[in-house]
Amino acid sequence: MTDAALKDLQTFLTANQVKGSAPDLQTYGKDWSIYHAANPSLIVFPENEKNVVDLVLWARKHKVPLVPSGGRTGLSSAATATNKEVVVAFDRMNQILDFNETDLVLTVQPGVITETVQNFAEEKGYYYPVDFAAVGSSQMGGTVATNAGGVKVVKYGLTRNWISGLKVVTGAGESLYLNKSLKKNATGYDLRHLLIGSEGTLGFFTQIEIQLTNQPKELKVLVLGLEHLENSLDVFRTFNKKMSVTACEFFSHQAMEKVLAAHAKLSAPFETQASFYLLLEVEQTGEGSAELIEALFSDCFENGWVSDGVISQNSQQSENFWSLREYISESISPFTPYKNDVSVRVSRAPEFVKTTQEIIQKSYPDWEVIWFGHIGDGNLHINILKPKDLSREEFIKKCQGADDLLYQQIAKYDGSISAEHGVGLAKKKFLHYSRSPEEIEILKQIKKIFDPDNIINPGKIF
Amino acid sequence: MTDAALKDLQTFLTANQVKGSAPDLQTYGKDWSIYHAANPSLIVFPENEKNVVDLVLWARKHKVPLVPSGGRTGLSSAATATNKEVVVAFDRMNQILDFNETDLVLTVQPGVITETVQNFAEEKGYYYPVDFAAVGSSQMGGTVATNAGGVKVVKYGLTRNWISGLKVVTGAGESLYLNKSLKKNATGYDLRHLLIGSEGTLGFFTQIEIQLTNQPKELKVLVLGLEHLENSLDVFRTFNKKMSVTACEFFSHQAMEKVLAAHAKLSAPFETQASFYLLLEVEQTGEGSAELIEALFSDCFENGWVSDGVISQNSQQSENFWSLREYISESISPFTPYKNDVSVRVSRAPEFVKTTQEIIQKSYPDWEVIWFGHIGDGNLHINILKPKDLSREEFIKKCQGADDLLYQQIAKYDGSISAEHGVGLAKKKFLHYSRSPEEIEILKQIKKIFDPDNIINPGKIF
Repeated sequence: MTDAALKDLQTFLTANQVKGSAPDLQTYGKDWSIYHAANPSLIVFPENEKNVVDLVLWARKHKVPLVPSGGRTGLSSAATATNKEVVVAFDRMNQILDFNETDLVLTVQPGVITETVQNFAEEKGYYYPVDFAAVGSSQMGGTVATNAGGVKVVKYGLTRNWISGLKVVTGAGESLYLNKSLKKNATGYDLRHLLIGSEGTLGFFTQIEIQLTNQPKELKVLVLGLEHLENSLDVFRTFNKKMSVTACEFFSHQAMEKVLAAHAKLSAPFETQASFYLLLEVEQTGEGSAELIEALFSDCFENGWVSDGVISQNSQQSENFWSLREYISESISPFTPYKNDVSVRVSRAPEFVKTTQEIIQKSYPDWEVIWFGHIGDGNLHINILKPKDLSREEFIKKCQGADDLLYQQIAKYDGSISAEHGVGLAKKKFLHYSRSPEEIEILKQIKKIFDPDNIINPGKIF
Repeated sequence: MTDAALKDLQTFLTANQVKGSAPDLQTYGKDWSIYHAANPSLIVFPENEKNVVDLVLWARKHKVPLVPSGGRTGLSSAATATNKEVVVAFDRMNQILDFNETDLVLTVQPGVITETVQNFAEEKGYYYPVDFAAVGSSQMGGTVATNAGGVKVVKYGLTRNWISGLKVVTGAGESLYLNKSLKKNATGYDLRHLLIGSEGTLGFFTQIEIQLTNQPKELKVLVLGLEHLENSLDVFRTFNKKMSVTACEFFSHQAMEKVLAAHAKLSAPFETQASFYLLLEVEQTGEGSAELIEALFSDCFENGWVSDGVISQNSQQSENFWSLREYISESISPFTPYKNDVSVRVSRAPEFVKTTQEIIQKSYPDWEVIWFGHIGDGNLHINILKPKDLSREEFIKKCQGADDLLYQQIAKYDGSISAEHGVGLAKKKFLHYSRSPEEIEILKQIKKIFDPDNIINPGKIF
């Protein structure tokens, strides 16, 4: 950065809004992903919309690229500054601005933590249904930029469904107020939906309007053992037709073994060993619900879809069942997992798991692959564990070599190379497996409209 | 059209795919709106995706603009050809292609009638929740192009929420397959949502993938009398917090009087006269629901929000109550209504009705204004009736003069000049009241990306 640029920056930001120490650069310069090193030039902390506009205009004038930074819990390096960019951290724009109980709209600044939104909603007697591992540290701005998904998508959909209005500063430095929390608004292209999931490449959010909903009724958790993963969808369809299914997760026996080995207090849900386990969370909406759950469970058993199963009898048991699924990532982390996050149509997920497992095993027979994920929405997390005798570098190199095999499969299944983690830097070279050349060209041209100088989050996605 | 162009057209369309008689030009050349006359040069009927691609490439080559045409039930002239365009009618691309009961995805061609989709879903035991007056003749392509709304938006949202995949031919003649019915797909900007609501200006749909859901449980209808419209939201909030509200409609006493005068078989829901009536449809989800409805109704009464009210005791009564709302448009049509369709945030709707009514009455004290609409989603239908002593032409001219007053109000309330009817030709000159100059410039640039020669539906929206 030139001296003139720095001097200019100081005309609209105070000294305490700018950080540049080595630890700060490392902390704010990257997300949770591990394959790209942080190398920003400065970290800045806007405190209001005007600061953000001034930053973008300054960046255009001095040709300094900006990288937005929220809770930095992303896994695609979309919030990683690798090339002397200035990181724009939204930590100080963290106020809840308004709650309207008729509209059920909660208005927040982008730096508000996702869990704060969940808790606020709950205190008011309502519900924010986007829920995923990083809710405790992710910021709302980041969740909107990545269109966050998680465990409740099967019933409630993605973050996209819950954003009723957005204030945005584009890469041109223009302030837009999109959709204004209108329920019906047929006045041309909906730019709000273009910004949601744009990974900070089109604009920075300065205000987020969130639609809340009613709290779910009492939730029951079932864990069911399956010999054949395809039966998970028979079970899902059976329950989903008669009840409100709020989560539909699966994990392999290997995944559960790793969790049980790492957590002595947890135990298997039942004695029978199965190849896969399905975790279903359903809503009890009134009298007769408990009996209905039992009846549907029996149907699944009688049809030979499940080999064994349990229904939670209290909230502690529900929590324990959920732990079997939620502790997987943490339990396998000592094995240096090479993670992948992909999706296919729900109906094709079991077949995809089977054929992909075969392909991986054929090329790498000694690799242990841990499968788990959100089978009810077609989102599969593939975790390849490092064989002991392979160095970390060699393992990553081999895994990256296997990525192409995996993504060819994805393309064959009309799937997505990134279900919910985004593209960022991590997957940009694979984007063509999910989007056609014509689509990618359109994405690039849209980027140019919003960011004519390629100044905000350049080089991400494509 | 030049002879060369016509000759070229005949190389890829058969004679029976082209119509040019005066009645055909009139029929296919316009939608239900009345302010723009039909003046197309030809009507063509593609039968497959290749026909559509060939048509667009032909149009680019010969510089002949195309106008898409579905069921032509629109009210904004988005599907009206005023300037010798070739109308592309999708009547013959009307096949249901696939239904997957695990994904609950129904795949159709764009010419399938909306009601056909509703009926198909019902036959399979599921539900397509987009419902509005023109379901019997609108085509799915048109409903996606306008992001159709209607009476169930309060619970189920707009058409946008139910489209999981789209095949599109852009104005450049490129075929795109967007989102492929993936539930999670974080691979860059979601172009599907850009196309939904684009009024045929970015591309023509050739395949639509529709997400179905479960059927609602038993529905109860309440009609409640209100002295003050603002109490409608107290009632809505009270019911919506405890139950699933599937519709929340309102109409003025004047509106009901017109319906009762035109339909001798219908009667007022109760004897007490009220200024406004609120129609609530709620879902009975289990035992205790009937008692809960009674209790909430009592609460509303005791709080002084409602002056009288009835709860439907059977489906015939529910239907009669709905008729009071649904017959309004038809009942006022002999009075040459000047219609407007606008929205504001739900919480601001009652105040907007009040202040807007005052403004209209101040300028035009002799005008009768009929208010009704979807108060639960902030969508208000304003119908100004023609005074007997005014000629139709003079009346329309005066109403159009009043439009600016109305839209200034809308802008003041951060509302939408078009809640669900779209912009088309009818409202393009008013677009600036709802979208900023910066936004409109972005819309225009997006149009250029998808349609570099301005060949599909030129001059619509902006």
